Amino acid sequence: MSPTPTTADVLERLADVIESRLPARGGDPQASYVARLLAKGPDAFLKKVGEEATEVVMAAKDAEHGGDAGQIVYEVADLWFHCMIALAHFGLRPADVVAELQRREGTSGIEEKALRKALNREGAGE
Amino acid sequence: MSPTPTTADVLERLADVIESRLPARGGDPQASYVARLLAKGPDAFLKKVGEEATEVVMAAKDAEHGGDAGQIVYEVADLWFHCMIALAHFGLRPADVVAELQRREGTSGIEEKALRKALNREGAGE
Amino acid sequence: MSPTPTTADVLERLADVIESRLPARGGDPQASYVARLLAKGPDAFLKKVGEEATEVVMAAKDAEHGGDAGQIVYEVADLWFHCMIALAHFGLRPADVVAELQRREGTSGIEEKALRKALNREGAGE
Amino acid sequence: MSPTPTTADVLERLADVIESRLPARGGDPQASYVARLLAKGPDAFLKKVGEEATEVVMAAKDAEHGGDAGQIVYEVADLWFHCMIALAHFGLRPADVVAELQRREGTSGIEEKALRKALNREGAGE
Repeated sequence: MSPTPTTADVLERLADVIESRLPARGGDPQASYVARLLAKGPDAFLKKVGEEATEVVMAAKDAEHGGDAGQIVYEVADLWFHCMIALAHFGLRPADVVAELQRREGTSGIEEKALRKALNREGAGE
Repeated sequence: MSPTPTTADVLERLADVIESRLPARGGDPQASYVARLLAKGPDAFLKKVGEEATEVVMAAKDAEHGGDAGQIVYEVADLWFHCMIALAHFGLRPADVVAELQRREGTSGIEEKALRKALNREGAGE
Repeated sequence: MSPTPTTADVLERLADVIESRLPARGGDPQASYVARLLAKGPDAFLKKVGEEATEVVMAAKDAEHGGDAGQIVYEVADLWFHCMIALAHFGLRPADVVAELQRREGTSGIEEKALRKALNREGAGE
Repeated sequence: MSPTPTTADVLERLADVIESRLPARGGDPQASYVARLLAKGPDAFLKKVGEEATEVVMAAKDAEHGGDAGQIVYEVADLWFHCMIALAHFGLRPADVVAELQRREGTSGIEEKALRKALNREGAGE
């Protein structure tokens, strides 16, 4: 009996699929959206990162004003997906990102440093 | 002997920590950067989503021009982290995002629909 | 002999053209890109604001690494143009934006307040 | 009797002020927010372009849901202001941007090309 697939399984499998679309791996721009973005180069998928981040913000503002919060999930998925395309182009993996998140959690450094800055900004009347 | 923590473990544990910083859970804005952002409300963390997406783009452009690709990992981690703060505010979890990614992978719908649009744009001379 | 058109003339004339594309003014989505964006509503042109801002950033990063700075002009024009579409939707004019810029210049308040915040952030080790 | 200052006057004068804050012109990072951003280099002010674009989007979403549209003016002014800092760094002027906008208006090329692309996207079911 196979276990329930974990988040890790999904992200890693998705990264495998994205990497298989790299030009160097024979990804076909006529047959795959991801292959197409990767073939066009960084500006194509980075523009999407900016666009999808804006869509996350808009979906969240709609939810703040009473709209369906589920739309946020859809837009964050789009944003993370295009981030993974960028990672693949540069030979990086979602596991690298997750390791970075884990590193910060371990040290708690992110909280302390960020808080110190935020309190100082507050003191300045921001 | 405990198994190696998976990506799922990390994201889910991090989401637990973020949720414990919610105002309704007693998060203290004086003691935690995350509690502070959550207490300020959506505009505070959504502005960060836009800012961190820009930092991903800048790090990727530097890497494209010969810079250290490792910086991209750092910036994507920042972006995903602030997305998780937004998710927590709206009662959502990273697992919801991963489930959405998995759903698309299963149907391959994202590839087909996105490709059809991209080919049409190309036909229009974009 | 007519004088050289000023910046004001151009922005105001462009705002007039954009306003003539509003649905309430009979703008035809089949005949005009601007009418089309305005007919679709805020998310359509706000998404473009996020996308064009990202393109400004990418063009500037290319110029920083030796590319043609002229591309920045093209992308800032795109960004301002889509901002003007947003302004038109909400019954606002570029002259309102310019008046706000002038107001700040007069008081010098923007410099002083922003500097005080920046120095405090620096003090916090950012 | 002096004429009412035009939009051109304001943008050009503001560009003059910003240029006087360039490091090469003796701008003092301890005395001016603009000099500080220019001294830090492109990433500092480009990050602000991304952040301010997000604030425009958030203000517009609030207005869409019944909030004060005047806030949009304030945020667009912030965005254009930081674009002008970027232009100054690269030896460019707002007049260059306005000339580009005028060039497009003259040819109407922007409308036709953009519309053709938009209609094709529509045809693809976007």
